[in-house]
Amino acid sequence: MDAIVEQLLKVVGKGRLLTAAAVAERPTSFWNAAPMQAKALVFAQNTEEVSAILACCNAHNQSVITHGGLTGCVAATDPTLDDVVLSLDKMDRIVEIDPVGGTAVVEAGAILQTVQEAVAAQGLYFPLDLGARGSCTIGGNIATNAGGINVLRYGMMRSLVLGLEAVLADGTVVSSMNRMLKNNAGYDLKQLFIGTEGTLGVVTRAVLRLFPQPASRQTALVALVTFDHVTAFLAMLRQRLADSLSAFEIMWADYYEAVTGENGHRAPLERGYPFYVVFEAEGSDPDADGKRFERVLNEALDDGLITDAAIPKSESETRAIWNIREEFDAILEAEPVYLYDVSLPIRQMVRYVEDVRNNVRARWPDGQCYTLGHVADGNLHFFVVPNESGDLHQVSDECVYGPLADIGGSVSAEHGIGKDKLRWLSHSRTPAEIELMRSLKRGLDPKNILNPGRVVSA
Amino acid sequence: MDAIVEQLLKVVGKGRLLTAAAVAERPTSFWNAAPMQAKALVFAQNTEEVSAILACCNAHNQSVITHGGLTGCVAATDPTLDDVVLSLDKMDRIVEIDPVGGTAVVEAGAILQTVQEAVAAQGLYFPLDLGARGSCTIGGNIATNAGGINVLRYGMMRSLVLGLEAVLADGTVVSSMNRMLKNNAGYDLKQLFIGTEGTLGVVTRAVLRLFPQPASRQTALVALVTFDHVTAFLAMLRQRLADSLSAFEIMWADYYEAVTGENGHRAPLERGYPFYVVFEAEGSDPDADGKRFERVLNEALDDGLITDAAIPKSESETRAIWNIREEFDAILEAEPVYLYDVSLPIRQMVRYVEDVRNNVRARWPDGQCYTLGHVADGNLHFFVVPNESGDLHQVSDECVYGPLADIGGSVSAEHGIGKDKLRWLSHSRTPAEIELMRSLKRGLDPKNILNPGRVVSA
Repeated sequence: MDAIVEQLLKVVGKGRLLTAAAVAERPTSFWNAAPMQAKALVFAQNTEEVSAILACCNAHNQSVITHGGLTGCVAATDPTLDDVVLSLDKMDRIVEIDPVGGTAVVEAGAILQTVQEAVAAQGLYFPLDLGARGSCTIGGNIATNAGGINVLRYGMMRSLVLGLEAVLADGTVVSSMNRMLKNNAGYDLKQLFIGTEGTLGVVTRAVLRLFPQPASRQTALVALVTFDHVTAFLAMLRQRLADSLSAFEIMWADYYEAVTGENGHRAPLERGYPFYVVFEAEGSDPDADGKRFERVLNEALDDGLITDAAIPKSESETRAIWNIREEFDAILEAEPVYLYDVSLPIRQMVRYVEDVRNNVRARWPDGQCYTLGHVADGNLHFFVVPNESGDLHQVSDECVYGPLADIGGSVSAEHGIGKDKLRWLSHSRTPAEIELMRSLKRGLDPKNILNPGRVVSA
Repeated sequence: MDAIVEQLLKVVGKGRLLTAAAVAERPTSFWNAAPMQAKALVFAQNTEEVSAILACCNAHNQSVITHGGLTGCVAATDPTLDDVVLSLDKMDRIVEIDPVGGTAVVEAGAILQTVQEAVAAQGLYFPLDLGARGSCTIGGNIATNAGGINVLRYGMMRSLVLGLEAVLADGTVVSSMNRMLKNNAGYDLKQLFIGTEGTLGVVTRAVLRLFPQPASRQTALVALVTFDHVTAFLAMLRQRLADSLSAFEIMWADYYEAVTGENGHRAPLERGYPFYVVFEAEGSDPDADGKRFERVLNEALDDGLITDAAIPKSESETRAIWNIREEFDAILEAEPVYLYDVSLPIRQMVRYVEDVRNNVRARWPDGQCYTLGHVADGNLHFFVVPNESGDLHQVSDECVYGPLADIGGSVSAEHGIGKDKLRWLSHSRTPAEIELMRSLKRGLDPKNILNPGRVVSA
């Protein structure tokens, strides 16, 4: 047995360490069904153990890949036989919920949906929300600065974390568990660990910011005929519903048609419209809010901004509408399929989507490019399906990222860089920026043991 | 002439360099009327000059104190004869306002109020707002992560900066002028320069996030009889006005009485109530919003949550109410007077304010402690007036910070650490946190030339 594995056994004990053969019984991630490869996988039980594990690995120059819910989209958690995997699955406690202060203290391995439900049981609301809610962890949400469907109103994960605790590469525990909305006492160290994909430290606990449970929530699915209608409708909602507008998700016809119909979701609105939008408003006055919502919707219909609309009449109808946006198994059946996440100025979107589609069609005659996104925050997703076999990732990347650099877009809006986008980082960031990232990485992790080869090269 | 001054003259030319004698004709800051002391003061005209100035100072191990509007409250900008001052006053251009993207590109020396007015002229809204708006600069707002009166709804400066450009100690220009709401392409480097008080780099330009101009704004001043009434009233407003509540500022009786009356502000509500609150709501439906605001206010009166209320009938009456909160010349006439800015959990506030007052009275029989704050975000301010002469700063600090450590409060909610609070940093941060701050400082500014002795000791 490898010396490092023997050392780690001493830290966590036999019951919480898997060796390579046992690791291989697990899938690599949600997106990659291949057997997971790793020298060993250790389950930490508390911060002290994370510290001991990292100190041990650092002393042995041993690379460590940190695992949360394994739903990330950029291959950041895919280990190799040279890596030790540190899993935070067992650190999933909800330590405290403070309704007066509006805070929750949770361990990094807590599942997002579990946290949402626990705070809801106390009449509070944790607004981060994304399709992977049932599997993804708070630690992963922090490491990737997760976005999702409520960014419009509540911001990304960065805005929802008041404090955190992280363990540095050498095992030093930095506890920065601030609970205040305002705290300018020195550098805001938590920023080092939010959105840096575990490359500067391992997040072990966090103080989350909670909100009052909205008194009302209205949802609708609408159909629109041009992208100009989409932006005009968004502007109207922003003006008329102001901050109560909490989600605005667009689906192009190709996406909507791919996931509805035979064996797919029931289509609450006819297929065949060019654009579909699911949107949601949260309010503080259930009676008035519902009326206002319907009034605004009727005006949009009268003005021709939207062409058709469906308002769900129950929780389950609401869930069914959201499932169209969030469950895309029909698309994932293709092999290969490549998922993208970019951001760009809204006014460039029509042209950019057109460019990407033309690129895909030019490469692969039967290729498909399914498009959806958050739009209001400049964020689009694509599923590129070449309908040809082989590893076409690189070519597909060129189709999507090629037209992005000139318009100042980002190769990652919310998914991060991981391993998949490492070679594209320079598309969105300058050499001076990348050099500063590398200097931070060298300063905090001089032996390059934490998620090496992710975000920045050493 | 000092070698470094000669070098700097070559960079900026004679018209934009003041030597020690000319520097001494200026006051040190808004808070310190003593003649400013510095080896030289240089006005940079653009980013390239900032880069050349820093490269030159770095080569000569020359300390540089960066100056914006000089309204900071923690002596961070007070230089000595050993320092070179780098002023960004001449870099005050508003480079671009993009109404579609909702962004403004401005230079760091631009005055906050000038930016507010320029974007308002295009129907947009930049929500950072504080009493010093007419003097403070965007660069200073970024360096200190400024807070102010609209944090409740819009967050602090950190939430309002999409991208920025900064110059490192060695002159390297890091341009990270992101314009997107979502961008997870690599480390979010701007966080290194927000709230780090110019110790890690000099911010030269920024991309600010703009909002639609609110269609309506309602303001009221109310009187309340206990702190429990204040928190209950806040909870009611949050529930009933939800996100439209944009400001909620509390004044204790001692503050209200000190700044109103003879030679002070006119008092729109009788003096003598224990608490006063100014609050503001912004809405998207002027007619309905005004009615709702008055309805909520009437209910609060009927329920006995508030005891009296004044609703201004004009812009100038609104301004007059805000002046009570923002202009406290009557208090500043005392000598000495010490200003504080702390944050703590709301449920601890009554007891904490009592403790601070008792401490002040125990030290100085005629001592006064005027209290005000933002409350909703845990932030309180004090003016401590010993009514005795001498340098009583240290004793006064002990009165205020003494009771704070045990309740997990912060010695700085929004003013920063600067020089004034350096010795109190360990009151709010752990040794591991402070060591990590110092390691960042060493990594980015190895010669310790940028605002040395601020935030962290070398």
